[in-house]
Amino acid sequence: MLIVFSVSGGGLVVYSEAKPDNGMNAITSTEAKPHNGMNVISSSETDGKKKRVVVLGTGWAGTSFLKNIKNSSYDIQVISPRNYFAFTPLLPSVTCGTVEPRSIVEPIRNIVRKKNVDVHYWEAECFKIDRDNKKVYCRSNLTTNLDGEEEFVVDYDYLVITVGARANTFNIPGVAENCHFLKEIEDAQRIRRTVIDCFERASLPSLTDEERKKILHFVVIGGGPTGVEFAAELHDYVNEDLVKLYPKAKDFVKITLLEATDHILNMFDKRITVFGEEKFQRDGIDVKTGAMVVKVSDKEISTKEVKNGGNIYSMPYGMAVWSTGIGTRPVIMNFMKQIGQPNRRALATDEWLRVEGCDNIYALGDCATINQRKVVEDICAIFRKADKDNSGTLTVEEFQEVLDDICERYPQVGLYLKEKQMYSLVDLLKDSKGDDVKSVEVNLEEFTLALSQVDSQMKNLPATAQVAAQQGSYLADCFNRMEKCEKNPEGPLRFRGEGRHRFRPFRYKHFGQFAPLGGEQTAAQLPGDFVSIGYSSQWLWYSVYASKLVSWRTRALVISDWGRRFIFGRDSSGI
Amino acid sequence: MLIVFSVSGGGLVVYSEAKPDNGMNAITSTEAKPHNGMNVISSSETDGKKKRVVVLGTGWAGTSFLKNIKNSSYDIQVISPRNYFAFTPLLPSVTCGTVEPRSIVEPIRNIVRKKNVDVHYWEAECFKIDRDNKKVYCRSNLTTNLDGEEEFVVDYDYLVITVGARANTFNIPGVAENCHFLKEIEDAQRIRRTVIDCFERASLPSLTDEERKKILHFVVIGGGPTGVEFAAELHDYVNEDLVKLYPKAKDFVKITLLEATDHILNMFDKRITVFGEEKFQRDGIDVKTGAMVVKVSDKEISTKEVKNGGNIYSMPYGMAVWSTGIGTRPVIMNFMKQIGQPNRRALATDEWLRVEGCDNIYALGDCATINQRKVVEDICAIFRKADKDNSGTLTVEEFQEVLDDICERYPQVGLYLKEKQMYSLVDLLKDSKGDDVKSVEVNLEEFTLALSQVDSQMKNLPATAQVAAQQGSYLADCFNRMEKCEKNPEGPLRFRGEGRHRFRPFRYKHFGQFAPLGGEQTAAQLPGDFVSIGYSSQWLWYSVYASKLVSWRTRALVISDWGRRFIFGRDSSGI
Repeated sequence: MLIVFSVSGGGLVVYSEAKPDNGMNAITSTEAKPHNGMNVISSSETDGKKKRVVVLGTGWAGTSFLKNIKNSSYDIQVISPRNYFAFTPLLPSVTCGTVEPRSIVEPIRNIVRKKNVDVHYWEAECFKIDRDNKKVYCRSNLTTNLDGEEEFVVDYDYLVITVGARANTFNIPGVAENCHFLKEIEDAQRIRRTVIDCFERASLPSLTDEERKKILHFVVIGGGPTGVEFAAELHDYVNEDLVKLYPKAKDFVKITLLEATDHILNMFDKRITVFGEEKFQRDGIDVKTGAMVVKVSDKEISTKEVKNGGNIYSMPYGMAVWSTGIGTRPVIMNFMKQIGQPNRRALATDEWLRVEGCDNIYALGDCATINQRKVVEDICAIFRKADKDNSGTLTVEEFQEVLDDICERYPQVGLYLKEKQMYSLVDLLKDSKGDDVKSVEVNLEEFTLALSQVDSQMKNLPATAQVAAQQGSYLADCFNRMEKCEKNPEGPLRFRGEGRHRFRPFRYKHFGQFAPLGGEQTAAQLPGDFVSIGYSSQWLWYSVYASKLVSWRTRALVISDWGRRFIFGRDSSGI
Repeated sequence: MLIVFSVSGGGLVVYSEAKPDNGMNAITSTEAKPHNGMNVISSSETDGKKKRVVVLGTGWAGTSFLKNIKNSSYDIQVISPRNYFAFTPLLPSVTCGTVEPRSIVEPIRNIVRKKNVDVHYWEAECFKIDRDNKKVYCRSNLTTNLDGEEEFVVDYDYLVITVGARANTFNIPGVAENCHFLKEIEDAQRIRRTVIDCFERASLPSLTDEERKKILHFVVIGGGPTGVEFAAELHDYVNEDLVKLYPKAKDFVKITLLEATDHILNMFDKRITVFGEEKFQRDGIDVKTGAMVVKVSDKEISTKEVKNGGNIYSMPYGMAVWSTGIGTRPVIMNFMKQIGQPNRRALATDEWLRVEGCDNIYALGDCATINQRKVVEDICAIFRKADKDNSGTLTVEEFQEVLDDICERYPQVGLYLKEKQMYSLVDLLKDSKGDDVKSVEVNLEEFTLALSQVDSQMKNLPATAQVAAQQGSYLADCFNRMEKCEKNPEGPLRFRGEGRHRFRPFRYKHFGQFAPLGGEQTAAQLPGDFVSIGYSSQWLWYSVYASKLVSWRTRALVISDWGRRFIFGRDSSGI
């Protein structure tokens, strides 16, 4: 349990404050006002004192933000097409009925209900962000039989964009039409139905064995953690449960995992990759690496060999699941064009999660990437700031004074030192000056040279729930202490300006990652290159996921789902 | 618990025999053979010795038949578009999330898996029955991406039709397009999503209060047990769970129950009707009796007063649930035309559940009604059979001999005697001869007169799960003992033929009926006019339903669902 809680950082905890005064209150306090054919919730209508924060999305980042916001001086409006938070790491379990979909969702209204902050939720999708007028345009995706306005506009003072990403098809023809994805609850439910459909279809008397083989050929595209976990779950489902009900199916069923690179799970330690590949081989899951999908028709998947001449092969399939990477949502694409960030995958933010070139707009989670500022760009500013006496050279004393600020503002410096096994920037300067170690006084030229390599340590954060949840709680913390930090800034020195930054920049803490491999075995890569593979990691996985679930309700349900699966197996009703 | 088990007649029990040798075996033993563009599973391909029984449907009647069939000399083929059995009495609970859909279904393959009878299941829908050639035409409703034949033909020796019924719209315009029904699992899931959609939609900032009222107006059409239970469940859901998340909704939400006759629950005892109506009034559920729906548009429901001049009123609504009665499925309609039974609601069968005018075709459950033979039609045959000495008059002795057979063959005679508080048919004859009681010898004319009123006691069986389940187990019992009873018939005398009927006719045992009224209160009408209303009946309801569930898995799940609801309330995520 010690490990459980040490690993469960970024997890969301349950709130128990009492003050149920939100929900539909929102509506009465912001009365409708038709305006140019659209309803605008304008600033004059809400409490003049409270700053309006609009949160787009109820995924990991958005929900983490909402759970951690405590400052009641905000009027928070949440807009999302899903009125619930879904614990997405368990989605692969949902595809095969190991866990029920409803066990991993929690209504967002329930999450924010007991807070003493005004939070209003509206089930709608934002389709346009207007930076200049500080408005978001929303459209309800609910179909009812009444006219009513489908669209409305919401004004904001602060906008928090957490809309996440969508599956990336890389514009490969036929993928969007013929493949299943694994991003939303509905995707998992659809996959579950389709698996059963394939088995029922293959049982029909009118088919040849050849056709049965085609129908029972399940192809997973993408050897990342999600694809691997789904393939493993499916293999367990087939071999533990479905063979009992469809005994002959064992001879026809085949699971293929396609991966374009040389290995599956290539973001993990080599030991995990090897173990995973060997286990899949033993299980009879056909892992095809170096195979890039180039086309998916309704009957066949065409792959191209990455090496060895690039031959193209085709394979018939019954069901295909696409989990190769994430793409950009249309609303973000439009917004990026508007703010001059075209041709990017995600919104660029600074280290405080503020969207570059926008006032009071924050982006976090899968729809954003932090554009870490390079030292090399600011080298002159840093030098000038450090050189207090304007002597043109930096002394050790001058240097010591700004050292912490540099390391905080530019975390790559710290990483670089660690990499070089040095203790402080002074060592780095000494190192760059070579043998000439007597004087540690450096001029701009020498300073630039010494720091020229540090930016190579910059890395983008992975698009994981862990990152999104940490960003959400970081931003909520900033919002909670906004006024206080305005007066007493706690961030690093502004090298290109005056004073200090209000907040410390966002810093990600990696607590490790799991790769469930089926058969009650899981691979875990924990911080410090600690790797654990096998049954014990599976129990670690159970504990961590149970402890990280969003509420006691979901926790109880997921645990009872696991128990039910042990006792009764997975259900195969086609509903 | 004593009551529980005494009431649970017709309930299905769990099997534990071992011999898992069916499932996909079916496929290999019946190889595909293209024939006129369709695949025919012809007689030569199956074991020549075994009689092929085709069962259409996996509802109460079909599943009860499958659970009780034990005679391994049949080759049973089950064809149904649903690969599971659904415990339909809990459907109203599913609409509001009190019970999860997956808790009340059990895969049909799981139910038949451990039997030592060959049972093959195919997920397809029968669209044509060919009585003359003993074939059924089936179409798979599964969509996969392979060509494969969508249709196939199955030969049968015995056909058991248990396809059930569909919702009856009475051809009222707009009902099919705009109303929800409550027959299938999918219906209940759709209703659940729509309820949440209505609440989310009503929360949007762009609406007026008037529009909110319209959206949150839920109309239930039909005051039978299903409609009443759904209205009660919805009321509980709104008041126990949704008001917490949508606090202002309480002012807008309204539930209306429309019933064309004078009272709701009119098949129940008067005490239950009165209690139900009063409880609904206290709860604020608007019960409108004597209101016949004449049209449903996408925005309004138009009702006509049955009395008082027949004024027509219209009411706007957000969601409408139609549960007024049952109608005929298309395949049954076509079949009835073919066999000369047009213009009926359901297939007419004799008292042995054999479809009239067909050899070896049985129909049970909601798609069939038993056409009880009238005494008046057979009066001459009965008289001749009883009059052994052909004297033209019946003596008491002659009469005593056939008395039991008459009562068994024509159950209305027994009911009539009970009604008149007489002990035997002799009393009836005496009664009809009035004062002339000295002679109990009667001629045909007097006999006919005496029995002229008995047919008034004939009643159709209600279309309930209880009837269907009893019919299924009755028919399975007949099939189990077919050969034995062929040799030693155990049924009543054939009055219009020679010898005896093979089996006793089907006789329905009524174990009572429940009407849950919400707020942990239920009305129960048990045999012998015993009526119980209130909290105790609710616990009776819990016990009976738990005990009647189809498997230990569903039992455990439903009970844990109930527990979860008590602790955490009902979930309102829009999935």
